Amino acid sequence: MPLDPSRTVAELEELRELTGDENGAQRVAWTDTWETAREWLRGKLAVTGAREEIDAAGNQWFTIGEGERPLLLGGHLDSVPNGGWLDGCLNVVAGAEVLRRIAEEGTPPVPVRLVSWADEEGARFGRSLFGSSAAAGSMRDQDELRKLTDRDGIALPDAVREHGVDLDRALEARSQLEGAGAYLELHIEQGPVLESMGLPLGVVLGTFGVERSRITWRGQAAHSGSTPMDQRRDALAGAAKLALDIRRIAAVAGSGAVCTSGNVVCRPGIVTSVVETAEQLLDQRHLDADTLARMLDAAKTVSEQFAAEENIEVNWERIWNIEPILFDDELIELADESIREVAGASHRLPSGPLHDAAEVARSGVPTVMLFVQSLRGLSHTKLEDTKPEHLELSVRALDVLASKTLARLAAR
Amino acid sequence: MPLDPSRTVAELEELRELTGDENGAQRVAWTDTWETAREWLRGKLAVTGAREEIDAAGNQWFTIGEGERPLLLGGHLDSVPNGGWLDGCLNVVAGAEVLRRIAEEGTPPVPVRLVSWADEEGARFGRSLFGSSAAAGSMRDQDELRKLTDRDGIALPDAVREHGVDLDRALEARSQLEGAGAYLELHIEQGPVLESMGLPLGVVLGTFGVERSRITWRGQAAHSGSTPMDQRRDALAGAAKLALDIRRIAAVAGSGAVCTSGNVVCRPGIVTSVVETAEQLLDQRHLDADTLARMLDAAKTVSEQFAAEENIEVNWERIWNIEPILFDDELIELADESIREVAGASHRLPSGPLHDAAEVARSGVPTVMLFVQSLRGLSHTKLEDTKPEHLELSVRALDVLASKTLARLAAR
Repeated sequence: MPLDPSRTVAELEELRELTGDENGAQRVAWTDTWETAREWLRGKLAVTGAREEIDAAGNQWFTIGEGERPLLLGGHLDSVPNGGWLDGCLNVVAGAEVLRRIAEEGTPPVPVRLVSWADEEGARFGRSLFGSSAAAGSMRDQDELRKLTDRDGIALPDAVREHGVDLDRALEARSQLEGAGAYLELHIEQGPVLESMGLPLGVVLGTFGVERSRITWRGQAAHSGSTPMDQRRDALAGAAKLALDIRRIAAVAGSGAVCTSGNVVCRPGIVTSVVETAEQLLDQRHLDADTLARMLDAAKTVSEQFAAEENIEVNWERIWNIEPILFDDELIELADESIREVAGASHRLPSGPLHDAAEVARSGVPTVMLFVQSLRGLSHTKLEDTKPEHLELSVRALDVLASKTLARLAAR
Repeated sequence: MPLDPSRTVAELEELRELTGDENGAQRVAWTDTWETAREWLRGKLAVTGAREEIDAAGNQWFTIGEGERPLLLGGHLDSVPNGGWLDGCLNVVAGAEVLRRIAEEGTPPVPVRLVSWADEEGARFGRSLFGSSAAAGSMRDQDELRKLTDRDGIALPDAVREHGVDLDRALEARSQLEGAGAYLELHIEQGPVLESMGLPLGVVLGTFGVERSRITWRGQAAHSGSTPMDQRRDALAGAAKLALDIRRIAAVAGSGAVCTSGNVVCRPGIVTSVVETAEQLLDQRHLDADTLARMLDAAKTVSEQFAAEENIEVNWERIWNIEPILFDDELIELADESIREVAGASHRLPSGPLHDAAEVARSGVPTVMLFVQSLRGLSHTKLEDTKPEHLELSVRALDVLASKTLARLAAR
């Protein structure tokens, strides 16, 4: 079959009908609906004669061609509950279109493999990137995974066993990425940047490093009526100052820096008392590890200043962090070229959210991602959407990039 | 008995032993422990020959002397659960000491009545000032009161009936305040002002007017990683700005103004999202009604400015309000004189918390309160405390004030 990007849009709609409802996509990993989607994908690829394999971590692979340095295309069919129609599955369905186009043209010079990663979202057990982290060898929390249960009390090892995965052997999926030549992933942006620039497509430079902190401000509870303003030790004042000052910190760090205070919990939290304790969440992201470290330092330093001003205490606790993961320079150039060829203009941007591509990149496989514009930046909701013409452009760009990458790999 | 302020301290300790435990005072109204305290008070006043009456709202009255324009002394024996040893009962126990002193000296020129108000705290049903609002005739929420239940599901009308009160007849307690000449109440400050000034005693000018508002800021949830700083509509930013700007509003309003943001609730309240909705509580108080109205206006105006700056929405909802209640000018002068006589120096201050005295004052009875220093401003906790020498001074001041007031009433 020659490439037909409109077929990708039609197949995405078909998948939505098959595995969604009035509240959105319901392809939560390790469920029957997810298996329905995998079976559907199997059918769509039958025409290619691709060899199918479910690896030790539950990832579904389709391979055409023989030899070394395979080209990998990937995405994930699983969704969050009440999810959007594009997050994850666009990559798989567009990849299937590209694989069919390549298969139609005969045996490729190096193997081409499409992977549908298992449980990117972590919606059921709270642990995202299950399949790709196993394949990348970065799944180092199996003792923690063993303890995870879903809302019905079912343990993760039992749930994955129902789908043919033995958690103790999941890391055997590492063999899938050994010797891979390149990994390409197309995804909706899930943010507003491309829409605000009026561009359909962009090249992803890598995924942000993230520092997540819990900041606890401690003042003194005191009666709202009987405590003069100058005798208060108001924990909320510290949190409020930091919630506003993180904008300055992001501005100093320069383009692409983001800082978010997503929650403040006040105690006692009543109208008749000055706030004694304010527990604040802070998320800071940047593509450069040193800049990210400076952003965290700046927030800590200014919080000490605020605590002194307010005569309150401040304590920092790191909740989670991850280093920035940079994509491959050569593939970034090829992706930029491909986008310009199909859409006229390109833009390079970091990814805020993590993706399976980040796991693949940190395993050492040269990796790049394409972003297609999201409408209103919405994702993880049934309101998630992208214009059909942009979806079609994205399939074309992925196809051009796959061809260029194949040629490079074949030439080595 | 001649006045013996040290006996008041001893009797307060006795009452603590009788009706408290290791967690503090447990004299919650409409409980057996509260009745134990009332029975104890009855015993302490037997020597005076006072006539006892429980009125239609459950208030306990002890009267000596005959005639018109009685002098009233009052307080409340009921406490919050795990309360302090002084809040409310200091007034009653000190009043008992003064009543005994007056009775010892023969029949007073006008009647002297000690009242122990029923359920000042509202700890069991969430409605404070039960007995005093009934006596003042300002209890206008009987339909609401009928619906109130405690944590065990017992309805307020059933609970008060156990203690001899028929809710439908509670307002008959109004007759108690008709024709009263003056009402005096001594209370711990429950705030830090007198301690910070190094003064044992102060005269209360009245109780603050209060405006309580719920302010809802609405922005847009957006991914913490993929949403550039300049494209955010962060509801928390509005709440943070207002939480800080209320200090300026209080400063502009001048001495005695207080503004408190006691809680902010963020939704979705997760580290990976910009805050979509922030629900903020604001409590504003002032002794002057016009100034209080200007404080509320200022907060509303500046909130609109913040909403515009942040491209978010703001909505105001009044939760509760009460007008300022001013005490009697002549009694304020007498109280000031009395304090200077026993302690050398006095200070005039507003009361942030409401008190039974506010209900009495708004019924038209000339009223004043004395405050005695609270250590660290703590109240509604077993940590609540006042130095014994200050408690003794407060009994002396109440006694002097009672004598001066009696003389005025007798001279009319």
